[in-house]
Amino acid sequence: MSVSAAPIDVESLRDRFRRAAEAAAAAGVDALLLSPGSDLRYLLGAGGSSFERLTCLVLPAAGSAAEPALVVPKLEHPGYAGVPTDELGVHAATWVDGEDPYKLVADLLKGPKSVSVTDMMPALHTLGLRDALPDARQSLAGPVLRELRMRKDAGEIEALRKAGAAIDRVHARMGEWLRPGRTEEEVGADIAAAIVEEGHTVAEFVIVGSGPNGASPHHGVSDRVIEAGDVVVVDIGGPVPEGYNSDSTRVYSVGVPGFDDVLDTYKVLKDAQQAAVDAVEPGVTAESVDAAARDVIADAGFGEFFVHRTGHGIGLDVHEDPYIVSGNDLVLEVGMAFSIEPGIYLPGRWGARIEDIVVVSEEGAVRLNTRPHDLVVLPS
Amino acid sequence: MSVSAAPIDVESLRDRFRRAAEAAAAAGVDALLLSPGSDLRYLLGAGGSSFERLTCLVLPAAGSAAEPALVVPKLEHPGYAGVPTDELGVHAATWVDGEDPYKLVADLLKGPKSVSVTDMMPALHTLGLRDALPDARQSLAGPVLRELRMRKDAGEIEALRKAGAAIDRVHARMGEWLRPGRTEEEVGADIAAAIVEEGHTVAEFVIVGSGPNGASPHHGVSDRVIEAGDVVVVDIGGPVPEGYNSDSTRVYSVGVPGFDDVLDTYKVLKDAQQAAVDAVEPGVTAESVDAAARDVIADAGFGEFFVHRTGHGIGLDVHEDPYIVSGNDLVLEVGMAFSIEPGIYLPGRWGARIEDIVVVSEEGAVRLNTRPHDLVVLPS
Repeated sequence: MSVSAAPIDVESLRDRFRRAAEAAAAAGVDALLLSPGSDLRYLLGAGGSSFERLTCLVLPAAGSAAEPALVVPKLEHPGYAGVPTDELGVHAATWVDGEDPYKLVADLLKGPKSVSVTDMMPALHTLGLRDALPDARQSLAGPVLRELRMRKDAGEIEALRKAGAAIDRVHARMGEWLRPGRTEEEVGADIAAAIVEEGHTVAEFVIVGSGPNGASPHHGVSDRVIEAGDVVVVDIGGPVPEGYNSDSTRVYSVGVPGFDDVLDTYKVLKDAQQAAVDAVEPGVTAESVDAAARDVIADAGFGEFFVHRTGHGIGLDVHEDPYIVSGNDLVLEVGMAFSIEPGIYLPGRWGARIEDIVVVSEEGAVRLNTRPHDLVVLPS
Repeated sequence: MSVSAAPIDVESLRDRFRRAAEAAAAAGVDALLLSPGSDLRYLLGAGGSSFERLTCLVLPAAGSAAEPALVVPKLEHPGYAGVPTDELGVHAATWVDGEDPYKLVADLLKGPKSVSVTDMMPALHTLGLRDALPDARQSLAGPVLRELRMRKDAGEIEALRKAGAAIDRVHARMGEWLRPGRTEEEVGADIAAAIVEEGHTVAEFVIVGSGPNGASPHHGVSDRVIEAGDVVVVDIGGPVPEGYNSDSTRVYSVGVPGFDDVLDTYKVLKDAQQAAVDAVEPGVTAESVDAAARDVIADAGFGEFFVHRTGHGIGLDVHEDPYIVSGNDLVLEVGMAFSIEPGIYLPGRWGARIEDIVVVSEEGAVRLNTRPHDLVVLPS
């Protein structure tokens, strides 16, 4: 597997390294143990891929006597040629099949009492490291690194803006594909191709929830044939080459909606989404934004049909901190980016969700998705 | 996300459930905790997808007072509608954002002392379960379930055979794409499209290692322009709709090879691959198959340039047990399926690898890839 190197300057990476090591120290963690994925991409500019062989960036906390190292299978090491390891002071510790990579990590550290591992690290490696470092309490690196990753810098916001514009172009073309007589799968395949055509590296997810399938928030695509009168939820996204993701949902009606309650209920949803966007400003809590959307929907009598949180952070991961959910008293700051996506789901009938990515600015939320928020009626 | 349901009959699933529960009991484990991925697909016929919300099949060991349950976010539950949970005696335990799914798992079990988790379970969930079940020692479910998954039944072998035939058809078309003047990325994109055209659901991996890039075993694709005289390693595969994977490598020369040592060295590799295939029979160890290939390469003086194991098991995962590697004294049995893929990598110059999937039969190895094993010389 190749390692896609993002064009991030060494100075920025060095700064992220320093702040990560300081955040680890502040959290009382002796070292961060980061396997391939978005944490690694954030710190090295390259994500790598993770199979059963351990690749792990060992990043000691600030003040530690240990030194940063990239533990990597010898046969995958060439894939990191584009990573400025020397400039970052990271030495490569390669291993070959038959050797114990967990012991290699343990030998690099000086008897740590506490390590934090990548949230997505497979149990295969988490338990391997547990056994090789029996005196080290394991915790998640996410809460440590989210303090860095949650606050996007200008380059990251630019990449998110690019992703948002790319997915908006796909939504703008929905009329090319969404017609009666076609299956969700057929429409989804066309959308997936367009997601790549419009500038993403891959179509990470494609939801085409038509008719009653729209009432299942995480429905993907099915062989259901779209009919005139269907309300269709289209939730799509993926990463642009910089690694940052898009994620936007719009609702389409194929001809006149087949239920009498669609227009009035949809207006409630649109108002709820707008209320949550309006609630965003530096200094308010994540849960207050959730409540802003939820209150509008509950006041209209649909509270029980809004069955998920209002949003999730987005960046190198499609879902990351901050989560816009009841119980999360995190205070929003300038540079945080997340979705605002309330939904109303009427089982067996139809559903709707409106989703934009927003970035917190001094003036409040800046939407990165700018397609109209109205129900889009396509020809039937 | 949708859950792709495989067409596996309920009786087979019930049998797998029973054997998994018995294997857990035999391993001294109180319950298997299985998150989305190939384990879940093996047991439920549906894999699901894994984000930050816990989905987990709780499968108590045989003899336990606890009952099987599928812990699943309420909004993802409809995606499991195609799974015969009632017939399997699995009840759904749904949860919504804000609730603690790890506590839900703990409440379903009766104070377990030992649980095994999916090898690929993200640390987010592994540590969440650790904290909710502080008295339960965690181990990996892989060693428990591999006893089932390693021995393929007739339906699984048929799916692997279908996958093998599909990837063979892609290799047969290589001359359409691999030409001087094109980049590895361009060739790789064409191959990826053909992988899907020929019957895979996705192009899971595409390696086009041209010239010196062929000497990096896990190289993916790059912007390197292919030149006349290049030796090119093409390692490709992906899943067919049944979920089972293909994985096959062939070596191509674009015109006459640009180095004098290619033909003689390639012959060593071909002999090594054949020797390993010939070494396969029920009752021999995995490491003896590795040694069969390695000895041929070492005897010819190339031992240091064969830098990885000889093979890996394949099925619902591209890499799974049994691993064909030094130190693995697992005894091969009828129905086991794995790759045989020795390689010789000459840094800075060129590399080669020949890979077939084989299934162990009473008569020895049956190759599921049947393209010729010679160096394929394409027009330059």
